[in-house]
Amino acid sequence: MQDAEGIKRLLAEDQAKDVVIIGGGLIGVEVTEALVSKGCRVTIVEKLPQIFGMLDWEMARLVTQHMEAKGVKVLTDHTVVKFEGEGAVEKVVTDKETLAADMVVMAIGVRPAVGLAKDAGLAIGDFRALVVDGTMKTSDDNIYAVGDCVESKDRITGKACYMTMGSTANKHGRVAANNICGRKDIFPGVLGSTVCKVFDFTVGRTGLTEAAAKQEGYDVEVVLAPGPDRAHFMENAKPLLLKLVVDKKTRKLLGAQATGPGDVDKRIDVAAMTLAAKMTVDDLANMDLCYAPPYSPAMDNIITAANVARNKLDGYIEGISAKEVHEMKEAKKDFVFLDVRSQAESDEVRLSNSTLIPLGALRLRIDELPKNKEIIAFCKISLRGYEAALILKAAGFKKVRVMDGGVVMWPYRKEK
Amino acid sequence: MQDAEGIKRLLAEDQAKDVVIIGGGLIGVEVTEALVSKGCRVTIVEKLPQIFGMLDWEMARLVTQHMEAKGVKVLTDHTVVKFEGEGAVEKVVTDKETLAADMVVMAIGVRPAVGLAKDAGLAIGDFRALVVDGTMKTSDDNIYAVGDCVESKDRITGKACYMTMGSTANKHGRVAANNICGRKDIFPGVLGSTVCKVFDFTVGRTGLTEAAAKQEGYDVEVVLAPGPDRAHFMENAKPLLLKLVVDKKTRKLLGAQATGPGDVDKRIDVAAMTLAAKMTVDDLANMDLCYAPPYSPAMDNIITAANVARNKLDGYIEGISAKEVHEMKEAKKDFVFLDVRSQAESDEVRLSNSTLIPLGALRLRIDELPKNKEIIAFCKISLRGYEAALILKAAGFKKVRVMDGGVVMWPYRKEK
Repeated sequence: MQDAEGIKRLLAEDQAKDVVIIGGGLIGVEVTEALVSKGCRVTIVEKLPQIFGMLDWEMARLVTQHMEAKGVKVLTDHTVVKFEGEGAVEKVVTDKETLAADMVVMAIGVRPAVGLAKDAGLAIGDFRALVVDGTMKTSDDNIYAVGDCVESKDRITGKACYMTMGSTANKHGRVAANNICGRKDIFPGVLGSTVCKVFDFTVGRTGLTEAAAKQEGYDVEVVLAPGPDRAHFMENAKPLLLKLVVDKKTRKLLGAQATGPGDVDKRIDVAAMTLAAKMTVDDLANMDLCYAPPYSPAMDNIITAANVARNKLDGYIEGISAKEVHEMKEAKKDFVFLDVRSQAESDEVRLSNSTLIPLGALRLRIDELPKNKEIIAFCKISLRGYEAALILKAAGFKKVRVMDGGVVMWPYRKEK
Repeated sequence: MQDAEGIKRLLAEDQAKDVVIIGGGLIGVEVTEALVSKGCRVTIVEKLPQIFGMLDWEMARLVTQHMEAKGVKVLTDHTVVKFEGEGAVEKVVTDKETLAADMVVMAIGVRPAVGLAKDAGLAIGDFRALVVDGTMKTSDDNIYAVGDCVESKDRITGKACYMTMGSTANKHGRVAANNICGRKDIFPGVLGSTVCKVFDFTVGRTGLTEAAAKQEGYDVEVVLAPGPDRAHFMENAKPLLLKLVVDKKTRKLLGAQATGPGDVDKRIDVAAMTLAAKMTVDDLANMDLCYAPPYSPAMDNIITAANVARNKLDGYIEGISAKEVHEMKEAKKDFVFLDVRSQAESDEVRLSNSTLIPLGALRLRIDELPKNKEIIAFCKISLRGYEAALILKAAGFKKVRVMDGGVVMWPYRKEK
């Protein structure tokens, strides 16, 4: 509270032009947006290779680009070494740069205040928070604990985790009160569902990221599905990028991430329900979600994403991430990087070393492509890229992949 | 298509000032909104006692009031007898009224064109549409059928139904194509998920209405939960009314309806997932839906509604509908109609024959209430009404009920 009042005072006195935010998590990003709206020049300093650790890197990259477009400087892989200044901070020195700073906001995470609990001999878990059972009871039968000072159970992995959300704390309170008052109630754990406003974007996630799923030992398939968030002919349709992480073995959803100016929270909530119900992408693909043009496409974005996942799981489409393509290019691997967009789209933005054959002309010009080289097809979102791959495979091309998410997901330098 | 062109032509020629829409379903209402935005004076004539037959009456009533506030005349229980005019329609005569009409739009439902299918000897169901199995195959092994010409399976009741939605038709197409091409895919049926924009309101539903559930023989509990659709301190928070229908025996959700200017479609999609997963309201109440103040309250509206349902199922709150209260008042039943809102709220709108004791004063003034009469408590949304009921019960009052949804759901004349 005092910090918030201090920030407001400095802003009111016009004493905070250059602000450095240390930590690129939820709090750091939310404070960034607030301060930019007050006219501050904001730099985020993040120790890790990406901000928004709750997202996979390519999703975080899109959010970072949006923040940069709003004038925010985002420094990743930067470690703060010291602060400099006379009486008040004037500079933040990282291991790579020195930044002007009239104000510094530390947003490097939260740690539960469990001193009292420790003194009382209550069990503390690996995340330095209180251990509770499903009734929110601590290791002492007469003591219950709720909110940011307790560990939760991850509903996907079944393991303990530490997730601090106001929504979770509210539910904890009710569960504990019910049990204390003799009414049985079990808190089932969390999915890590999160949503955050970042300027004109919404960022959301639930369940495991691709990175976390792999770390847990899952063999995963991923989908990147960009598209308008409602019927494309509606004036209020906005772009939305959805990522699904799916367990190859069980075909069950493991996690979802979404970002863009479009309607993110609805799809993340549907994904959270899919996770809680342990549904497969096949179940999700035929779900009766409500539809009218002002609210969603006839095939909702998450249903399309589920169908892409099914196509991948069933071997109809082999994807490759933009990152892997980039690495292949850097390593001078020999392959055809096939752009099947229109000439006009390519004139606007082209990716280096790509070969342009618009989808409509592909059957006619198919002989221009070598059968002995790998072909990686793409378009703006890789829907036409997928169609191209099907045409090529039907024509006898053996090694054809599609770049996941298309040009939308290409975070490297785009050429004119 | 020709009808749409005809309507556009009449509008362009300024020949459609008074328009009568026959039929108050989805199409009738959507056309009404479009025509009002073009400056027409629109009257909807509906044969049944309510428009929006897909909703329970009290929900439909709220939507009707909103349409009336936008200048639409809504005539229910009116049967069209004839059209009058010279060369073109000039009047619509119902069994009760004669209406001026430069244009009439018939929106009385759709009937599948199954002539060809009948001639081919294919099985036709009770809804006069084609019978298909889960693979979308008709009674002929070599013929598949999809879209508005086929019957669906209701996922709640397991029975055949006829629901025509673009989203369903799209899914049908994929399932049929998959099966025709040798890839197994089963369409699981529909939930009746629907969403519709009605001026500043969104109207949505999924699963069974209270009326339909009762007709199916379910013993149901219902919840009416009005509230802001995101954190109440957010400027973009808008009112949302949610109704849940719950099976008393299994505690499973049977259906949900929502309306208001708030974010309806997200909650209806979450409800649809709850239905498909056959989850109880207990499951739903502890669901990890994504939360941030710009997107939802900390306890999402549907989670609060699920908790109200749990309180009702567990006997902590006994509800009574506004309709039943109204009937008790009409029948001059002896009960205390206890308003626990503030004096200011009561000064603005009061319900007739109500007794005002603001919640904060209830404990002090509890002796003013008779212990031998039934008390029906209410406030604006009946949250304080519920708290009042708990206080009264703890003080020994035996017969206390809470009016579901509070003043928000009172469709009768409100007094100043």
